[in-house]
Amino acid sequence: MAAYIEPRILKGFRDFLPQTEIIRRSLIEKIENTFGSFGFVPIDTPALEYAEILLGKGGGETEKQIYRFKDNGERDVALRFDLTVPFARFVALHRGELVFPFKRYHIGKVWRGENTQRGRYREFTQCDFDIIGSDSPTSDFEIILLIHTVFKNLGVDVSIHVNHRGLFNNFLSHIGQSEKSVEVLRTVDKLAKVGENEVLESLSALTGSANAKKIIEFINARGSFTEILAHLTELSGGACPETERLAILRQYMLDAADFASGTDPFVLAPSITRGLDYYTGVVFETFLQELPDIGSVCSGGRYDNLAGLYSKGGSISGVGTSIGLDRLVAALESLEKLPAANSHALAIACIDAQKSGLYQALAQKLRAAGIPCEVFTEANGEKNLVKQFVLAEKKGLRYVIIPSENPLDDRLTLRDLTSRQNRELSLEEVILEIRGFEPLT
Amino acid sequence: MAAYIEPRILKGFRDFLPQTEIIRRSLIEKIENTFGSFGFVPIDTPALEYAEILLGKGGGETEKQIYRFKDNGERDVALRFDLTVPFARFVALHRGELVFPFKRYHIGKVWRGENTQRGRYREFTQCDFDIIGSDSPTSDFEIILLIHTVFKNLGVDVSIHVNHRGLFNNFLSHIGQSEKSVEVLRTVDKLAKVGENEVLESLSALTGSANAKKIIEFINARGSFTEILAHLTELSGGACPETERLAILRQYMLDAADFASGTDPFVLAPSITRGLDYYTGVVFETFLQELPDIGSVCSGGRYDNLAGLYSKGGSISGVGTSIGLDRLVAALESLEKLPAANSHALAIACIDAQKSGLYQALAQKLRAAGIPCEVFTEANGEKNLVKQFVLAEKKGLRYVIIPSENPLDDRLTLRDLTSRQNRELSLEEVILEIRGFEPLT
Repeated sequence: MAAYIEPRILKGFRDFLPQTEIIRRSLIEKIENTFGSFGFVPIDTPALEYAEILLGKGGGETEKQIYRFKDNGERDVALRFDLTVPFARFVALHRGELVFPFKRYHIGKVWRGENTQRGRYREFTQCDFDIIGSDSPTSDFEIILLIHTVFKNLGVDVSIHVNHRGLFNNFLSHIGQSEKSVEVLRTVDKLAKVGENEVLESLSALTGSANAKKIIEFINARGSFTEILAHLTELSGGACPETERLAILRQYMLDAADFASGTDPFVLAPSITRGLDYYTGVVFETFLQELPDIGSVCSGGRYDNLAGLYSKGGSISGVGTSIGLDRLVAALESLEKLPAANSHALAIACIDAQKSGLYQALAQKLRAAGIPCEVFTEANGEKNLVKQFVLAEKKGLRYVIIPSENPLDDRLTLRDLTSRQNRELSLEEVILEIRGFEPLT
Repeated sequence: MAAYIEPRILKGFRDFLPQTEIIRRSLIEKIENTFGSFGFVPIDTPALEYAEILLGKGGGETEKQIYRFKDNGERDVALRFDLTVPFARFVALHRGELVFPFKRYHIGKVWRGENTQRGRYREFTQCDFDIIGSDSPTSDFEIILLIHTVFKNLGVDVSIHVNHRGLFNNFLSHIGQSEKSVEVLRTVDKLAKVGENEVLESLSALTGSANAKKIIEFINARGSFTEILAHLTELSGGACPETERLAILRQYMLDAADFASGTDPFVLAPSITRGLDYYTGVVFETFLQELPDIGSVCSGGRYDNLAGLYSKGGSISGVGTSIGLDRLVAALESLEKLPAANSHALAIACIDAQKSGLYQALAQKLRAAGIPCEVFTEANGEKNLVKQFVLAEKKGLRYVIIPSENPLDDRLTLRDLTSRQNRELSLEEVILEIRGFEPLT
């Protein structure tokens, strides 16, 4: 046996200390409660799958980043690198057991051998949610409404940028440039980087200057959702299924009255075109109103055939998206909107270690009344109250109960660590007092 | 790209469908709430670690079962096979950042290439909890009390069998047989398998017949906790630190009055000796009173030097244990004590898909009032109420709201799927009604 092994963790992997882990769990709980409030249900899948399954659609980047190896039975296996591919495999395998439309969420860790120099982690948590087996615009809207509600429940205002993947192609077809769509998209993608003039020049060379101007006009359309939609419809030569879909979505947004209050959180953004190759219908990106520069915190859209690669049955379309927990934590941290990390408010001091059984009996009464309660031991400083008060403050507790000679029968002394006052109270009075507690910050 | 890949999962790995996953999460939440009510805080560690760290103490079995491979950077890495070794590494690495005594819990997946023929899984979830940095009997007691409370809160009565690792050695030393302890233990371990007579014979050959009788008397001591303790103390030639420790523990048990009510859940079991080599002080095993045959569902004890292998600092002793979630789920299932899998009670029917925005607006009011609410879409059968009622029943829902012409203004029709009755109610009345709902079973 080795005498000493240096304790270290792999680059890109993290330990979560209690202060951080409590916050992460509290965030996940809030997100799950919102999912549940929409009738979404959780699933889970293995961390490890056959590499063939995970790499099915795989291109170069995925193949390079995936943790892939031979297990002890010489199977070619890999750690999941996202929750989308396992979901596709899951749906193909359990199709007959699911009730469609199937609204599921999945919160779990995924692993990618990313370049950690860009501040990326190799182990991170994703929260995916999708509605599959429904091609309805109601489902598109429900996902968008759910995104909005998740962030609202976290205390954050978002702008959700919406587009339809087919809209731009339809427009290009109308102006007779559809066969150049790949080059046009590639050029348009450079807008933010090289500026309008340079893009206009490249587009003119590609499509002629009249068309180039129309393309820029399309991509840069400004105004309210309804105004932009009218403008795009006109540029595309009239209504088409894509504009109809967006018009229905807009009606749903307006009907869900709460949204119209304050700033309109929905933006029709014809420039959303790239990075979402997987999608075939409505697409969206989500920006924090107070922190737009960090980019989209929740991108997604409608897809045609989720389980296609793994299924011989008919195709299952759906709409869905994903929230990266780490990015969310970082964003909420810089907005100072992370929940407090207090897990409990109260400790019972150790006056006489021999009475620890009675202290625990007292604590059990508080716990049964819904009040989390820690019992200090002689290791925390028997009889030394000052030492125990300092420890309680260090732990972020608000109160210490100083038990009396007969902890279960006598009145109790309740120390408020904020006011540094002691009060003599009955157990019932202590319970009433603490139920209204505010954690120390 | 392959045209079709057969959807399959690795042997020993599992998908969790919503029905099961909701129950697992609900169990984990109850367990976490109990941990939190004792002031225990959560941590998390990476799934993947340096193999050297995980195998530090490793013997043959672990080495054979572990998922170990070279990552893309040629590091020798492995998936964690328990939560104990990562915790030891964690404590060594973060010693300066922790407040001692440190009470932590850790719920997470672990991976072992077990032989699946024995009904074992290769991916399973463990719930570990420990108090470290305290050598106090109060901490021993707190862990035992926490085990008792976790199961009580799950609706299950347990017997916790307690012993002290040093007690038997102390006794052997008193009868002058300490240098034969390994052989004696090995022989005694066969008691259940081969019976008392055969063991007595083997022990007689080893230690002489008078000592052999004493050994059997010690291991088989019967009676109340206090009676057995008195008997063992006498057989060991009087009080020693080990018997003192158990006497203090017993006092704590009696002081925590709730325990004495009904059957005594604590048993002093001098036969607990094996399989717990890691422990140096108090040890315990937990049996379900209604299902003792499945064996211990929560074994643990006190250890001397948790982080020893990874730390050059002074040793950190502690006490702790682990609950296997899968075994617990199986046990609660056969006791019919699993919580119900209902996530929500209510759906709003789709009468006119064009009004889906208004239906969502209505749902948002219910969700804001704390009532999870699903909105059916045309995919669920627009206008076809019977189809939607059947779907709602399939999903285990109790109620369907049939919205009226003006969903936000008019009175609503609430369909109770159990009684098959419709009632016309205001939104406020619906909220009051549903807050008292019982899920369909």
